[in-house]
Amino acid sequence: MRAAFEIPPDVVALCDYERLAGARLDPMVGAWLEGGAADGLSHAANLSAWGQIALEGRLLADLRGASTALSLLGMELAHPLLLAPVAYHHLAHPGGEAETALGAAAGEAVFSFSTLASTPLAEFGAEARGPWWFQLYWQHRREDSLALIRAAEAAGAGAILLTADAAVKLRNTEARIGFRLPEGVRAVNIAGFAQAPVREQPGRSPAFLGALETAPRWQDIAWLRGATRLPLILKGVSSPRDALLAAEAGFDAIVVSNHGGRALDTLPATARLLPRIADALQGRLPILADGGIRRGSDVVKALALGATAVMIGRPQLHALSVGGARGVAHMLSILRAELEVAMAQTGCASLKAISPDLIWRD
Amino acid sequence: MRAAFEIPPDVVALCDYERLAGARLDPMVGAWLEGGAADGLSHAANLSAWGQIALEGRLLADLRGASTALSLLGMELAHPLLLAPVAYHHLAHPGGEAETALGAAAGEAVFSFSTLASTPLAEFGAEARGPWWFQLYWQHRREDSLALIRAAEAAGAGAILLTADAAVKLRNTEARIGFRLPEGVRAVNIAGFAQAPVREQPGRSPAFLGALETAPRWQDIAWLRGATRLPLILKGVSSPRDALLAAEAGFDAIVVSNHGGRALDTLPATARLLPRIADALQGRLPILADGGIRRGSDVVKALALGATAVMIGRPQLHALSVGGARGVAHMLSILRAELEVAMAQTGCASLKAISPDLIWRD
Amino acid sequence: MRAAFEIPPDVVALCDYERLAGARLDPMVGAWLEGGAADGLSHAANLSAWGQIALEGRLLADLRGASTALSLLGMELAHPLLLAPVAYHHLAHPGGEAETALGAAAGEAVFSFSTLASTPLAEFGAEARGPWWFQLYWQHRREDSLALIRAAEAAGAGAILLTADAAVKLRNTEARIGFRLPEGVRAVNIAGFAQAPVREQPGRSPAFLGALETAPRWQDIAWLRGATRLPLILKGVSSPRDALLAAEAGFDAIVVSNHGGRALDTLPATARLLPRIADALQGRLPILADGGIRRGSDVVKALALGATAVMIGRPQLHALSVGGARGVAHMLSILRAELEVAMAQTGCASLKAISPDLIWRD
Amino acid sequence: MRAAFEIPPDVVALCDYERLAGARLDPMVGAWLEGGAADGLSHAANLSAWGQIALEGRLLADLRGASTALSLLGMELAHPLLLAPVAYHHLAHPGGEAETALGAAAGEAVFSFSTLASTPLAEFGAEARGPWWFQLYWQHRREDSLALIRAAEAAGAGAILLTADAAVKLRNTEARIGFRLPEGVRAVNIAGFAQAPVREQPGRSPAFLGALETAPRWQDIAWLRGATRLPLILKGVSSPRDALLAAEAGFDAIVVSNHGGRALDTLPATARLLPRIADALQGRLPILADGGIRRGSDVVKALALGATAVMIGRPQLHALSVGGARGVAHMLSILRAELEVAMAQTGCASLKAISPDLIWRD
Repeated sequence: MRAAFEIPPDVVALCDYERLAGARLDPMVGAWLEGGAADGLSHAANLSAWGQIALEGRLLADLRGASTALSLLGMELAHPLLLAPVAYHHLAHPGGEAETALGAAAGEAVFSFSTLASTPLAEFGAEARGPWWFQLYWQHRREDSLALIRAAEAAGAGAILLTADAAVKLRNTEARIGFRLPEGVRAVNIAGFAQAPVREQPGRSPAFLGALETAPRWQDIAWLRGATRLPLILKGVSSPRDALLAAEAGFDAIVVSNHGGRALDTLPATARLLPRIADALQGRLPILADGGIRRGSDVVKALALGATAVMIGRPQLHALSVGGARGVAHMLSILRAELEVAMAQTGCASLKAISPDLIWRD
Repeated sequence: MRAAFEIPPDVVALCDYERLAGARLDPMVGAWLEGGAADGLSHAANLSAWGQIALEGRLLADLRGASTALSLLGMELAHPLLLAPVAYHHLAHPGGEAETALGAAAGEAVFSFSTLASTPLAEFGAEARGPWWFQLYWQHRREDSLALIRAAEAAGAGAILLTADAAVKLRNTEARIGFRLPEGVRAVNIAGFAQAPVREQPGRSPAFLGALETAPRWQDIAWLRGATRLPLILKGVSSPRDALLAAEAGFDAIVVSNHGGRALDTLPATARLLPRIADALQGRLPILADGGIRRGSDVVKALALGATAVMIGRPQLHALSVGGARGVAHMLSILRAELEVAMAQTGCASLKAISPDLIWRD
Repeated sequence: MRAAFEIPPDVVALCDYERLAGARLDPMVGAWLEGGAADGLSHAANLSAWGQIALEGRLLADLRGASTALSLLGMELAHPLLLAPVAYHHLAHPGGEAETALGAAAGEAVFSFSTLASTPLAEFGAEARGPWWFQLYWQHRREDSLALIRAAEAAGAGAILLTADAAVKLRNTEARIGFRLPEGVRAVNIAGFAQAPVREQPGRSPAFLGALETAPRWQDIAWLRGATRLPLILKGVSSPRDALLAAEAGFDAIVVSNHGGRALDTLPATARLLPRIADALQGRLPILADGGIRRGSDVVKALALGATAVMIGRPQLHALSVGGARGVAHMLSILRAELEVAMAQTGCASLKAISPDLIWRD
Repeated sequence: MRAAFEIPPDVVALCDYERLAGARLDPMVGAWLEGGAADGLSHAANLSAWGQIALEGRLLADLRGASTALSLLGMELAHPLLLAPVAYHHLAHPGGEAETALGAAAGEAVFSFSTLASTPLAEFGAEARGPWWFQLYWQHRREDSLALIRAAEAAGAGAILLTADAAVKLRNTEARIGFRLPEGVRAVNIAGFAQAPVREQPGRSPAFLGALETAPRWQDIAWLRGATRLPLILKGVSSPRDALLAAEAGFDAIVVSNHGGRALDTLPATARLLPRIADALQGRLPILADGGIRRGSDVVKALALGATAVMIGRPQLHALSVGGARGVAHMLSILRAELEVAMAQTGCASLKAISPDLIWRD
């Protein structure tokens, strides 16, 4: 463990945490965390797309009693900033997921605990002080998926977030540097689970074997829906058609996401995905969104384009690696203050006041 | 005070003053002056947007007796170039606001005196030789705002310019460098005024407290309108809807502006704001505009897009830091000559001849 | 011959082979291989255009039994990745065309043998283990073209690919470096053929003399069609009108191509050519396409825009120069796995499922 | 005078001459030649706009007997490449205008002799071997303009080209470097002519005085039309409205031009000007065009967009400075061969076959 996780005084925005994390993290960890799929085009587009959207500013609005509060899936939240699931927090801090969750609780943000977390679920649940969700990767055997759900329920998870967009992946950045988990960091909660058998067949390559044969399908969702009373959220939606299928399949919410540009490269930026998906759903489900949100004005835009709340991915590990739990809480407080400033400058005293009209159209 | 404020012979355009100021100004002052809000996207867009608009050139027009003169709020002006309000001129020159105003008078340009000026209002008024306006930041107590207005009236201000877009702000560039005013430079005219009390409340961050609780609202404008006989101008309009509200509230003019990219980042560039706002107003109020104007052709475009006159912000401090009053006058003469050349090359013998037809449409 | 053609462990994508080939190839060979026509704008556009197209991702699709197989011109192919004709493989490897074809066979890909190959046709055919096509450049004398066709038939070619877009060319990159074939590498299969005589005429420059007087015309195609029973494919189509003429002239397929940006500079990128040409053809002929395909997602896009299969040009020589036959096979396996991943992430279990709907439209 | 004007073997395109000229020319001359008005945006746009237009390639067309010949203003020309007027050729070569004209004659191109030429008209005419036009800048006194016309007629000029877009100008690049003509180079043909008197008036700057008071107006054109029987061409048209006025005023042709980006900055690129102006004229006058043409494909595009012929400006001085008359002839032969190649690759056997259909539209 390093001697100190202190926040330098020139950290005033999320990009400052990213800059400092680049110097602090092991290069192999940096390649894993920052890399996108293939050429990184969706990751870059996520980041640039928000800035290319212009907002209409408003003056002299009545902002007395303004608030960022919202209700989401039965929870009363102080603000619409949630932490997205990220694997292996021990790669960024010796306190791992518990350290991040401590910062999230201080910042009044929902935490997401990954199937690939490096902390045992029960141990995490015993210490967790704020609300948290469990992110599920579908396992080869249904009993293993069920075991994860039961463990998450027992540990106090408030919802199940099914990530369905990463059954196969292509991470050149990781592969080139030869990324391997360091000693002592692993996905402890699925350590003993069976993997899909790989059957070589003539004329078929490994990518279509193994994982795909046991990957979840829409017809499996009824079982999942029946397996828990917790709210079910589908993460990784990048199609209006899938958003409608999610509503029909009984999900309680979706997360519009291209997996931070780590799934299929050249999926559209989240800012492009949102309007068409929101238009298809017509309010049938709450929409969360992640991907490149680094500023309070990005949050206003996501909400104006149809999101109810947003999730923050890489910045939580940037802040964690620099300042531990205090870094995570500080990162959230920066983004929250920026959101409030952006609401004030667009004349919005509540999240409900953030309407599509705020997006500037020439 | 430096030995000499001389204008080098290779200063032939406003960008030359900017280049030289970058070397002359204290880095902390440079960070304060050049920085935009957040990532500086609106500031950069202000600068690039004018150049992306193309003009239709005209040949063999009759330009005898051509003139840049105009009437504005009852004033007869030689040209449509005004100086925008900028705080703390003493940061750029020991003569402060008086030095700049001397150059403005020589260049026949209206000067704007900021609430955050570093010179006492009465002292400034006693020396001022050309027309000037007073820029008002709304104060926590109405009596303080009124005191400022009365002092400005007494000192000879020709109009009151209410800046309403900066109640909360987010200047990462200043924050990272730890900007502080040097010894001897401060906002002398509001030195004794009360600040808004900060009341901490659970679940609400400072941004929504304090300033916002006492920020001006449309319903306060009637009082302001009744408080002075001077023309009232609303600065910082970046919404067609607010432009109409300004007309209804009794303002005599508006300034279309994103505060030089220093208010909410990703507000549209001024060149994008103008057409929609002019279209909404339909001539009900004169429109001024600022933001990124560095060339005479930019001025022609602003007028073609609906402005009556333009305001020049940062370049006045660039020129002031390099050449004092003579620099300011020279900067104005460059821009004025460029405006005349651009009018000649678009076949316009008067400002009224500058019509939307001059904008090239493919 | 170099001591070893080994594939470094950090080669995980086609761009890695390109990077390594840049260091391995003789600079003169590199200028010949990488250069485009004139300013290289079409070559650059080929490469960037695929990445600018966004795909719609799909979740939870049923991908059991997924396959990349297709039928093309009576052949059953394992995947839609073919090798495009490239001249002089001995410039990249001492094994020449035979070495590349060995890798192609291992990768289950059709090979294309160029008129400008540096290996005798009969010698190549005797060793070839997988299917291959013969690429024909029209010769000055019909009997020479016919001799090439007969030799290709005798050697076992499965189709004749007529390249019709390079009768005259403009390769500044080659010309500046003074490209010459090294000792021992030449177009052995046309070594004794007659060239077009150059007749100087007043007021006409060489470009319009010589080659153009004997260049093939649509009216010559009937003879070609009658000269062989092999499938005939027209390569170099960059016009919807020519695609229709090709169907009428009796071609069995076309290759939409701007010759890798080596023919006329500023021909549109292949990704722009495809939709209009597919729309004109309305399925009358199978469409192949080449130009800038470097990722499996590019292949999905080409098929979504109307192609039946794609051809890979420069990357085969990059891989050949680095790893010989194993490099070529590895390059193909990378692209094939990426294709499968992209199909999985867009919910396509077969090539026929790849429809225009996959292209994201805002 | 330098020992040798030799053409290096790696000069294969116009950009190669530009590169070499940058090293050969005096920096002050380089600043004068390469600089555009103000920020150089129109100059840069001229250069980039041609490359952004895509062409439709055609295959297997019948190109026997192809030709680039045309008729223009009663002249039979071998190709549509003319040299634009450029001042002071002695700045690039001790042979001055005569040296360039020698290369033009060798390249079968019409030469343009500038009012600001550094060679006496009579001396030039006595040696000129090919067709040439006289470019006229309107003089302060009509008798001086008439004297120039008479001298040009006597010297053998084939047309009068009135440049009307540069009465006032703004060349920051020249001004910053303090450009002055070297000893022995001057505008010898107007050396004794009267200049417009400058009358200072209160409230009016020099730009609107002097030149503008005596600048030519549409009503002066009748006099000019009556003053010579030579064809009259108006150069500098960047407005569809002015193109129509030119036809009504009796001009025989126009040159669509933004003066190589040296007049009003942010005039549209020539490639953008052409379609609207050609559409307005509907064939009433032949259209010439200059600005950024560096490739044969640019010429095809200009003709497809409505031009009858094109003019080449800066490249003639680049080639002159490198290779003298031989350089100019070589530069023309490069461009001509490129034009022929581009015609072949778009299936055009004559200039008349170059139609708007060749421009690719998605």
